[in-house]
Amino acid sequence: MKISIERATLLKAVGQAQSVVERRNTIPILANVLIEAEGSTVSFRATDLDIEVVDRAPAQVERAGATTVSAVMLHEIVRKLPDGALVQITSDAAAGRLTVEAGRSTFSLATLPREDFPVMASSEYTANFSAPAPVLRRLFDKSKFAISTEETRYYLNGVYMHVATGEGGPVLRCVATDGHRLARIDAPLPEGAQGMPGVIIPRKTVGELRKLLDDDESNIAVSVSETKVRFATPAITLTSKVIDGTFPDYTRVIPVANTRRLEVDAAEFAKAVDRVATVSSERSRAVKLQLDEDRLVLSVNAPDAGAAEEELAVAYGDDRLEIGFNAKYLLEIASQVDRENAVFLFNSSGDPTLMREGNDMSAVYVVMPMRV
Amino acid sequence: MKISIERATLLKAVGQAQSVVERRNTIPILANVLIEAEGSTVSFRATDLDIEVVDRAPAQVERAGATTVSAVMLHEIVRKLPDGALVQITSDAAAGRLTVEAGRSTFSLATLPREDFPVMASSEYTANFSAPAPVLRRLFDKSKFAISTEETRYYLNGVYMHVATGEGGPVLRCVATDGHRLARIDAPLPEGAQGMPGVIIPRKTVGELRKLLDDDESNIAVSVSETKVRFATPAITLTSKVIDGTFPDYTRVIPVANTRRLEVDAAEFAKAVDRVATVSSERSRAVKLQLDEDRLVLSVNAPDAGAAEEELAVAYGDDRLEIGFNAKYLLEIASQVDRENAVFLFNSSGDPTLMREGNDMSAVYVVMPMRV
Repeated sequence: MKISIERATLLKAVGQAQSVVERRNTIPILANVLIEAEGSTVSFRATDLDIEVVDRAPAQVERAGATTVSAVMLHEIVRKLPDGALVQITSDAAAGRLTVEAGRSTFSLATLPREDFPVMASSEYTANFSAPAPVLRRLFDKSKFAISTEETRYYLNGVYMHVATGEGGPVLRCVATDGHRLARIDAPLPEGAQGMPGVIIPRKTVGELRKLLDDDESNIAVSVSETKVRFATPAITLTSKVIDGTFPDYTRVIPVANTRRLEVDAAEFAKAVDRVATVSSERSRAVKLQLDEDRLVLSVNAPDAGAAEEELAVAYGDDRLEIGFNAKYLLEIASQVDRENAVFLFNSSGDPTLMREGNDMSAVYVVMPMRV
Repeated sequence: MKISIERATLLKAVGQAQSVVERRNTIPILANVLIEAEGSTVSFRATDLDIEVVDRAPAQVERAGATTVSAVMLHEIVRKLPDGALVQITSDAAAGRLTVEAGRSTFSLATLPREDFPVMASSEYTANFSAPAPVLRRLFDKSKFAISTEETRYYLNGVYMHVATGEGGPVLRCVATDGHRLARIDAPLPEGAQGMPGVIIPRKTVGELRKLLDDDESNIAVSVSETKVRFATPAITLTSKVIDGTFPDYTRVIPVANTRRLEVDAAEFAKAVDRVATVSSERSRAVKLQLDEDRLVLSVNAPDAGAAEEELAVAYGDDRLEIGFNAKYLLEIASQVDRENAVFLFNSSGDPTLMREGNDMSAVYVVMPMRV
């Protein structure tokens, strides 16, 4: 293999591929990136056996070929090369070395044979559709905070993407929950997604996927099977196994009959929650909300350290209510609101509370109360 | 005590004081800041028993008094208050509470009695002088990287500030070393500093001191005794114990007869060292410098991972020389150079090497070679 490639192009491609590589590997080949050059394209493939990323970049290929080399080291080298440099990459299979040259710098890196690299088996996808990057970004950005980190309930360690029926008809829906809070985000169902099986997309995949979705203009090709999901742009293909488990029936925990309605400026609300929570050194301490005619009093009482109280002018016309929440959960859902006021719908102090942005039902959050 | 104070003023004063507080305290009072209000001034005092910081700020004092409260919590609360807020602080000694009010927020914090707060004993200082902030900043900024972290050689865990004889007469000198590299920085001797005893200023004090030195216009009042050092601006007083030990005779390790002179662009040199060091996963791996007629070849050889080499055009007219250094040490001293080229003076591959900026003898660095 012998190729020439512009440094910025190389950095982008290697950067995206290497981020999937786990920093601590017991299997040496998994620390490597598979470089394949053919035609006028070079591709960089990295995997952790659950996720595989392939990045393609244009290059001048003098001699086709393939090898594998440390992903982190290659990335570091390219990052440190001067901007605008032309990089020449040559592999010497006999010596087991890859040479990287740019300007007056020469690097010679240890390789492992391409045959040892575990390429993910291809899959028969049962649904293929296409969605604009901003639509997918919203689905995952607004749900991922609620993903559980508890390993025993592994089926909650991801975002459940599936087809559902929303207010206005069929939707592509993402749901995440850890049992304490839940996010349910809908988007219009793309053509071709009708027959899609519901899949639980692991947390790490959601993080890696984020990098594909940065470009507002791009359309993402999505393919889904019972065991795998694939997201692709012309330059990048991300394939991931999905979590082998059954996502619980979340519809039962979304309250439908909550009638006590609070409307509040989400930013002001979040700042006030953050302030009163300061007196509690434990993150899990409850913030108490006392609701009365157009008046909300937030308070925290931490007997050792002190107490805090703040009043907010709000829109609330129902009976007096006292209810407590984990401060962190309140902050997280309040920060999902960006266009309008936050609307909370309460039932009693022991029931799940629903939050949404104005009257928009396409993004709905549920949070469980705490005893105060 | 009852005071009103502008939020930004309060934040600055509390911020500077609280940074000296250790996060993990077995003695509860050491987590607190002592607030004292009198006349038209409020002061915030914090200590870790080795360093004491007192910050003074103008305030409207309705009722004089003093109490102590958690430094970190007070700082967090003030930080989260809205910009421009007027903060009212009231202490209720009987209830053992301090109330902080701003707008519609009220905080009630647990206090500890002012009598329990350990105020640092005052000291007889043997030398008092004044120096512009930029002069002191240079002395400490350019030397502190060489402070040792090895606790057994505790007398190297600071910067040795003393009076010495430089090329042009008496100087105020700061020296730090960890046995592998050394920094020696000189400034013109300020009036009144002549009789100053040499003191080893601990690493943490050097860090805290940095905050006093940010304002280019200010003059810093410095007082030194055998056991303590004090730095003061009109608003802040930083008092610190000095390290009780003898700084070794560093003059013996500064080479005076090194004649092989290399002159190199410091930024280009640092970038090249950084690049070739990439192939070594261990930070301590040596970078080899091969010097020949106006030519420097930097190389690293890490048998497992690979090898790297880079050539630089330099000014060098002496015999061929091969010498190895710890990459991190080379990077650190090269990054001290900001105006001119770096000048290295070598003797043999086993002898300490001297580095300075151009021909400026007021900042001199020594680095020990490694076998390569």
